[in-house]
Amino acid sequence: MTIPKKNVAILGATGMVGQRFVSLLQNHPFFCISGLVGSERSRGKKYAEICRWLLKDQLPSETGALELRGVGEFGEAREEDIEIIFSALPSDIAKEVEPIFAKKGYIIFSNASAYRMDDDVPLVVAEINASHMELVEYQRERRGWSGGIITNPNCSTIIMSLVLKPIYDAFGIESVIVSTMQAASGAGYPGLASIDIIDNVIPFIEKEEEKMHNEGRKILGDFLDGIVKNASFPISASCQRVATLDGHLLDIHISLHNPSDIDTIQKVLTQFGKSCSHLPTAPKETIIVTSDPLRPQPRLDRDAGRGMSITVGRIRKDNVLKNGVKLTVLGHNAIRGAAGQSILNAEWWVKYGL
Amino acid sequence: MTIPKKNVAILGATGMVGQRFVSLLQNHPFFCISGLVGSERSRGKKYAEICRWLLKDQLPSETGALELRGVGEFGEAREEDIEIIFSALPSDIAKEVEPIFAKKGYIIFSNASAYRMDDDVPLVVAEINASHMELVEYQRERRGWSGGIITNPNCSTIIMSLVLKPIYDAFGIESVIVSTMQAASGAGYPGLASIDIIDNVIPFIEKEEEKMHNEGRKILGDFLDGIVKNASFPISASCQRVATLDGHLLDIHISLHNPSDIDTIQKVLTQFGKSCSHLPTAPKETIIVTSDPLRPQPRLDRDAGRGMSITVGRIRKDNVLKNGVKLTVLGHNAIRGAAGQSILNAEWWVKYGL
Amino acid sequence: MTIPKKNVAILGATGMVGQRFVSLLQNHPFFCISGLVGSERSRGKKYAEICRWLLKDQLPSETGALELRGVGEFGEAREEDIEIIFSALPSDIAKEVEPIFAKKGYIIFSNASAYRMDDDVPLVVAEINASHMELVEYQRERRGWSGGIITNPNCSTIIMSLVLKPIYDAFGIESVIVSTMQAASGAGYPGLASIDIIDNVIPFIEKEEEKMHNEGRKILGDFLDGIVKNASFPISASCQRVATLDGHLLDIHISLHNPSDIDTIQKVLTQFGKSCSHLPTAPKETIIVTSDPLRPQPRLDRDAGRGMSITVGRIRKDNVLKNGVKLTVLGHNAIRGAAGQSILNAEWWVKYGL
Amino acid sequence: MTIPKKNVAILGATGMVGQRFVSLLQNHPFFCISGLVGSERSRGKKYAEICRWLLKDQLPSETGALELRGVGEFGEAREEDIEIIFSALPSDIAKEVEPIFAKKGYIIFSNASAYRMDDDVPLVVAEINASHMELVEYQRERRGWSGGIITNPNCSTIIMSLVLKPIYDAFGIESVIVSTMQAASGAGYPGLASIDIIDNVIPFIEKEEEKMHNEGRKILGDFLDGIVKNASFPISASCQRVATLDGHLLDIHISLHNPSDIDTIQKVLTQFGKSCSHLPTAPKETIIVTSDPLRPQPRLDRDAGRGMSITVGRIRKDNVLKNGVKLTVLGHNAIRGAAGQSILNAEWWVKYGL
Repeated sequence: MTIPKKNVAILGATGMVGQRFVSLLQNHPFFCISGLVGSERSRGKKYAEICRWLLKDQLPSETGALELRGVGEFGEAREEDIEIIFSALPSDIAKEVEPIFAKKGYIIFSNASAYRMDDDVPLVVAEINASHMELVEYQRERRGWSGGIITNPNCSTIIMSLVLKPIYDAFGIESVIVSTMQAASGAGYPGLASIDIIDNVIPFIEKEEEKMHNEGRKILGDFLDGIVKNASFPISASCQRVATLDGHLLDIHISLHNPSDIDTIQKVLTQFGKSCSHLPTAPKETIIVTSDPLRPQPRLDRDAGRGMSITVGRIRKDNVLKNGVKLTVLGHNAIRGAAGQSILNAEWWVKYGL
Repeated sequence: MTIPKKNVAILGATGMVGQRFVSLLQNHPFFCISGLVGSERSRGKKYAEICRWLLKDQLPSETGALELRGVGEFGEAREEDIEIIFSALPSDIAKEVEPIFAKKGYIIFSNASAYRMDDDVPLVVAEINASHMELVEYQRERRGWSGGIITNPNCSTIIMSLVLKPIYDAFGIESVIVSTMQAASGAGYPGLASIDIIDNVIPFIEKEEEKMHNEGRKILGDFLDGIVKNASFPISASCQRVATLDGHLLDIHISLHNPSDIDTIQKVLTQFGKSCSHLPTAPKETIIVTSDPLRPQPRLDRDAGRGMSITVGRIRKDNVLKNGVKLTVLGHNAIRGAAGQSILNAEWWVKYGL
Repeated sequence: MTIPKKNVAILGATGMVGQRFVSLLQNHPFFCISGLVGSERSRGKKYAEICRWLLKDQLPSETGALELRGVGEFGEAREEDIEIIFSALPSDIAKEVEPIFAKKGYIIFSNASAYRMDDDVPLVVAEINASHMELVEYQRERRGWSGGIITNPNCSTIIMSLVLKPIYDAFGIESVIVSTMQAASGAGYPGLASIDIIDNVIPFIEKEEEKMHNEGRKILGDFLDGIVKNASFPISASCQRVATLDGHLLDIHISLHNPSDIDTIQKVLTQFGKSCSHLPTAPKETIIVTSDPLRPQPRLDRDAGRGMSITVGRIRKDNVLKNGVKLTVLGHNAIRGAAGQSILNAEWWVKYGL
Repeated sequence: MTIPKKNVAILGATGMVGQRFVSLLQNHPFFCISGLVGSERSRGKKYAEICRWLLKDQLPSETGALELRGVGEFGEAREEDIEIIFSALPSDIAKEVEPIFAKKGYIIFSNASAYRMDDDVPLVVAEINASHMELVEYQRERRGWSGGIITNPNCSTIIMSLVLKPIYDAFGIESVIVSTMQAASGAGYPGLASIDIIDNVIPFIEKEEEKMHNEGRKILGDFLDGIVKNASFPISASCQRVATLDGHLLDIHISLHNPSDIDTIQKVLTQFGKSCSHLPTAPKETIIVTSDPLRPQPRLDRDAGRGMSITVGRIRKDNVLKNGVKLTVLGHNAIRGAAGQSILNAEWWVKYGL
């Protein structure tokens, strides 16, 4: 059965993540970009004129010709032809703007951090916890909205969680220690100054370590009677920025509840993600396991599965943690870690949602 | 009391670490380079002609004019005017060549890994375990040498150990998990290909993780009756190569035996290293603790204390390990992590040795 | 009319350019890789085992399963099913090996520099001087070969010449001054050491400036009665290596014989290359002219036309040269500047050759 | 004769160039920083608190403790203890603020571009045209100021001009074509976004090419009867930004009026700059000529002469220009190309000025 294409709008379309939304939604089988919403300053201007396009793929001319709309232009009621909105807004603006649209009846798939940790807001990675989207019912009831907000975690948390989930289900997890080497694009545009990253590493990313702990436990949590009960194991993260363009690399150490050998872990990882495999943005392999000791590498592996696959390598015993295992994980921060995840979540919603 | 200058020779003087020896020994108050030993191929040629000089400081003309000697040129007996030899040889060549010189009566301060883990070979970071140098007596007895080999650990182990030692002494250590972001120069010259490191991270460095576990425990071990009893806590390392020129950055998570607050840890780190403070290559501060959350950074901090200081930042609780603390550590891999350490060890030996 | 696929072999298939041949010949409508020829050392081993694959696209499993053949394995006569050979050999080996195959009747499309400047060897960029391929007749006669060698210029010369040709034809050229900023991959693998290129520029590339002068004038030369008469204008090149992975950027200053305005130059560039537009490896646009002053950029523009398009920007008057114009040019050194050009030449040969 | 130290103030002290002023004026034999002038927003705050210090050398504690003053705090008359002011202001602010101080009687040594091309404002590189400083007399007369503004050229122009001057004097110059590879720090802080420069080159720097043409000809101009007559030869520049931290590399092609051999050119370059050699910021060698074909390199040569020496290599014939010669030139953009030049100019003024 073919799903008729749905018109969608994008909030914050000119930034790095916004451009990824624009790029990934070209020729999408479910969605069609019909609206771009910008600041009052950009209102009425053509997207191609106001956006400094930063991606390799050319800006599609049809989208480039769209005029940006202001938030104020939208009437009281939801416009009939738009149901889904993708949000790439900065957190502080998202905090104000997203509820305005949710109230009017739009479903917002948001990459912003503003509402991620609210009790009644689903924080979703479709392969992991698509069922949490049901929280929207409670959200509507509590907030009096006819639409809703569905969020995805921050980039490094998405990448980490996709690896933790199958391990958690198969063996249980006691604790996680993770050290990240994150790409420059994760800071947005302009983001980091060039003289801060040439021949350098920056050992701090604001709020990132807290997000990995908090968001990671929420998306691995159990959903019961309208409540998400966070996973109970602690996550200790150290986040660093390195001189790569795209692709976050994570060194993850896991203490398993039940011991396992490496082969079994590898199998469990490889088989993960089938629940979404028929959705258009899902990659053929959610997790690719490599046996090459020199992989994964950001430059060579970030585009696997059109940026939606996670590549895992160097699975080996950790001699410090109880039933310890350590592994190297790589994912594309701007695709799987942001816009791609929002879109995959929306695909699941369209196909199986409320 | 002034120590009369001692003539020294350098084995493997043309490589990256060899060049650092040449550079650091200029105008040294204890030592004077009188011999450079190279392969048979380079024998008789002037150092300035055969060496592709890679450092910013100009090659000193006096050393540049020295002719390289072959190993075979040295007679049976030790040459009277040379007692100390610094070795920057690759491990496989060191394995063969260093004993030849040790047998003849030379004391070799070696940066090579060949003999580091031998029971009767001291593995020394002067501020940590200078007393282990007494092992040389046992080494001489056992091997029938009149000289001896004194080694220093590999670069990332030196940097890590300098931070672990004061913590170990003050609180005890249960376990250590460390993730490294190591500089390109650590792989020697030519080392890594440029296309492997531009816009990339390489998640594997051969034998490096094993070295951090084994060497780290040996230098923190107790020395009694001619035997080094390794420290018993496990060290789990993950080693990555990033696009920096010099300066290894380490994210270290430590489980303390006795709990401590951050202030006390900071004080313990700051006060460490006094035992060597009067030696010429020792920095004013062995460990610099910074409260700037964006530091340490390789580019800004590697040259602290002329490359001999370790900079520590972001000291904070680790919520996974028992009595856990985590911190970010940076040291200059080619100075403190190699040639500078060998020289500091030799200075201690000259002043207090057997 | 469909051309039946021809089996081809690749000489030097494990290096950087060799891998590009392998990658570009996957699913090629004219060609099918049936043989990979390597050193005696690699003989009999599977390509996937012996080749450290460096490209983002995965090594195709069919090619990976091919066993490498030694040069000596080939009999006296040409093997019937192989007619065309692509050569990615280093120049000194090409000098010896290519004639062996040419003598046996193979047509070698060679990226090596060994025979480029020989009077009877065509030096070809298909869009510019495909007719020079007729030189093969003279080559056969003179050397007694039944096959032949057809070469393409070095990377930076190809990129420069594609821009010079339409300008030369339309306005005439008096002289050219060019300064290059070349990518690391142009030096092969391992090529440049990483510590030479991080935070650095290398202002010298061996023989590159001479090649741009000599090869550039040969491919723009007239072909008459079996003789190529080089174009007579001088080319002064300065070649630098910068910290990019792929994509050579050229700042070209041209003195025109007849003056022209910028618009006409732009039109002339845009219309160039139609003679090959129906060949499978030819891009839709041979030359893309951009009006964005910040373009072309290596990272954003090198993959235009699947790496076969040249992007030109910043066309403006030069106030020093007579009828001077200057422009910024970018092309993918490893695709258009090497393997892709050889293949395009071969496609032309198959379709229109002798 | 010892010159008693003069108190100086710095305008725009928190930016990249301002920090260089602060760093270079530490322990200066002529000058002592007594005032830092900032925006109204920063007024009254300590420099160490408001300035994100970006240099490797530690921020000197004495200067760090200074409170920033606002422009409005200065009274009508010049403060007696301050005579010289260094300006690192952005051009638009310099345009307004510098005249306020010049009117009150301060002599401003300005790195800003605002007044560089005004007829009555000296544009000075002390070794080249210190005598142009006499223009200040005309400037005072015309503008009714008791102080004055003395500017230095933009970074790439300073570096180029220091090489052109001795050649111009010895042989005459007909024309110059120059292609630059400029460092990231030249764009200030934050300047270029990191994702614009990793694995990339930016082929455009706003107004830079015009500055090289205009400013280069002014500082090489003749000064007679209060008028600077610009040098008459044209300069065609193409300016690119590459992934280096500091150090602009220039590929310069020069058409000489009178022909010369390479040796003579080399001699002429080496002997240049003696007129300032006794000033404290002047390097021992103004121009260092290297015969190593791989030099100059930004990373290895930018700090020569504490950042004040220019390194020239690869001097060779240019086969396009009449009496053509081409060479590779490197200078530290933030020291010789900015703050260091202003200070050197001020030293000359103090010693020999009006």
